[in-house]
Amino acid sequence: MNKIEHIGIAVKDLKESNLIFEKLFGQPAYKEEEVESEGVKTSFFMNGPNKIELLEATREDSPIAKFIEKKGEGIHHIAFDVTDIVAEIERLKAEGFVVLNEQPKKGADNKWVAFLHPKTTNGVLVELCQEIN
Amino acid sequence: MNKIEHIGIAVKDLKESNLIFEKLFGQPAYKEEEVESEGVKTSFFMNGPNKIELLEATREDSPIAKFIEKKGEGIHHIAFDVTDIVAEIERLKAEGFVVLNEQPKKGADNKWVAFLHPKTTNGVLVELCQEIN
Repeated sequence: MNKIEHIGIAVKDLKESNLIFEKLFGQPAYKEEEVESEGVKTSFFMNGPNKIELLEATREDSPIAKFIEKKGEGIHHIAFDVTDIVAEIERLKAEGFVVLNEQPKKGADNKWVAFLHPKTTNGVLVELCQEIN
Repeated sequence: MNKIEHIGIAVKDLKESNLIFEKLFGQPAYKEEEVESEGVKTSFFMNGPNKIELLEATREDSPIAKFIEKKGEGIHHIAFDVTDIVAEIERLKAEGFVVLNEQPKKGADNKWVAFLHPKTTNGVLVELCQEIN
């Protein structure tokens, strides 16, 4: 785990929220991207070595739609940058964490990603991510 | 806003959660600290340029106790490192954010801190923090 790669924030309306975070950081999102497999539209803001990812659901069965229904808008996950995601999955499984993706899958922002179940991480949805070369 | 200084995570039992995050990061907390004014015990983990702060309530009226009662354990706030917290408070007020602390207060980890109300930041409790020189 090298650093916090990004924080994922669930929002109802990406356009409106882009304006809020543009004011917060004093600069606009540097990109928007749809991840159809996850049912989300995303935007990314740079913040020094870290990023903020805003996520809006594009369909009702999207994990983000379910999250907002249950908890409202807010912080959805923390993503940590890792050098070798396959090795990290193995290490964390051996430590007793419940890994939701035995094989990394393609996420937004050109990354291999895998998630840890919040029940083994104090209610925190943890994402591991590794840049795809 | 220079970077994510830390992510604050509300936990029920600091000792137990320290073990979980020690396994996650492969290294122990580098310090523990009680902030009596906030009614919390905290521990800090390094993660490259960022930190994770675990927070356990030390009394029933602590904001962390109320948070856990309402939402359960999980991510509580994002803290951003700023160079001039007083100027940043003024800038964000002018942008329409609701600042909870007009004057910065002393927080954990030798920092001046101020919070933004989640209602103006998509449900995200945002902390500004500046190292005390």
